[in-house]
Amino acid sequence: MRTEPENHDGKTEESPFFRLFVDTPDSFLLRKLEFLREVEKLKQVLRRNYILGGVRLENDAEHSWHAAMMAVLFFENAKSPDVDLLRVLKMLLIHDLVEIDAGDTYAFDQAGHVDKAERENRAADRIFGLLPLKMGAELRRLWEEFDEGRTPDAQFALALDRVQPAIQNYLFRGTVWKENDIRPEQVKDRFEELRQALPELGRFADAMVDDAEQHGFFNQ
Amino acid sequence: MRTEPENHDGKTEESPFFRLFVDTPDSFLLRKLEFLREVEKLKQVLRRNYILGGVRLENDAEHSWHAAMMAVLFFENAKSPDVDLLRVLKMLLIHDLVEIDAGDTYAFDQAGHVDKAERENRAADRIFGLLPLKMGAELRRLWEEFDEGRTPDAQFALALDRVQPAIQNYLFRGTVWKENDIRPEQVKDRFEELRQALPELGRFADAMVDDAEQHGFFNQ
Repeated sequence: MRTEPENHDGKTEESPFFRLFVDTPDSFLLRKLEFLREVEKLKQVLRRNYILGGVRLENDAEHSWHAAMMAVLFFENAKSPDVDLLRVLKMLLIHDLVEIDAGDTYAFDQAGHVDKAERENRAADRIFGLLPLKMGAELRRLWEEFDEGRTPDAQFALALDRVQPAIQNYLFRGTVWKENDIRPEQVKDRFEELRQALPELGRFADAMVDDAEQHGFFNQ
Repeated sequence: MRTEPENHDGKTEESPFFRLFVDTPDSFLLRKLEFLREVEKLKQVLRRNYILGGVRLENDAEHSWHAAMMAVLFFENAKSPDVDLLRVLKMLLIHDLVEIDAGDTYAFDQAGHVDKAERENRAADRIFGLLPLKMGAELRRLWEEFDEGRTPDAQFALALDRVQPAIQNYLFRGTVWKENDIRPEQVKDRFEELRQALPELGRFADAMVDDAEQHGFFNQ
């Protein structure tokens, strides 16, 4: 009775949606629904920083929403006239999906970054591979563009991805920086794209880290 | 020493960012940062439905991300040729911000809907009022358009806002529907925009509720 569309690798898979497609199999719709069911796990990928008030760690879905919200607000401040907000929003919505498999590699974890690319590429193969081929390929290319950080859209998106947790950490008086013994220069090193893509916000972010240092938000 | 820009209502307010603007007061940037600090609270507005696995309730920031992700996937299935994905994404990113003040009114809570509009309008005044005037007005209009649900963009966004929790509840075998003694017809009543804006997904959603009923996902 079940309509079980093949995955890209030829394997079939149990989906709770299958039985709804008995009469009108629509493998494109089913693939999208399965993708959505899978990426829902982003809500359980925990990051290193806290939500405001410090009541719990932030997760990747919340971070993705917050970074996308920032893109809407700061788009008018982009230095490059070539930034396409729609592409940036798509990038920010999907940029951490690979962490469902690969986990969140902490920004300042050097050991974790050694095999990060390999882990994330495998994850991208699997996760974007759940989608209809054309759409999966489009979103995967967009994720790669973000990850490479060379286009104006990718630089703008990366800038926000990197400054968002720094602002959260500042507002929480450096708790995360202290817990992980992070230095001010390490935080500032993450603002390279920001200074290029959004100079005003870059100056703010640098001033924020200086202020944090003066106010004892980093370990001495 | 502090640069304290006036709010729209003329009051000054303590911002942890003020001291960073001593030398170069930039009230536009400060307003955006304050707005972002405020809307971060969306991560703590709990909804009635669970995240997958049922480990905890979903919050509005996660829901907003998930609905925006759906918009990216289903845009190509929109019935109307007039849907503008960028406007839809902006709508979905901000559509629940008023709930920071007004709280999440459960879809099927008739008493809660009596003063919902008034509560949400007050919240919109305050929250969008944190932004620079022009941007605040633009986002507020966008939220109103969503809330009124008359344009193709608003109908498309509403459709996804309403089907997202239903799919979550189906996948969690109706736990939330049972807990709140919801009837299948009540769930289907929420798919009106969906059937118009995304007919294929509308047919799927109706079939999903029928299947849920057959499989005992609602109280008898």
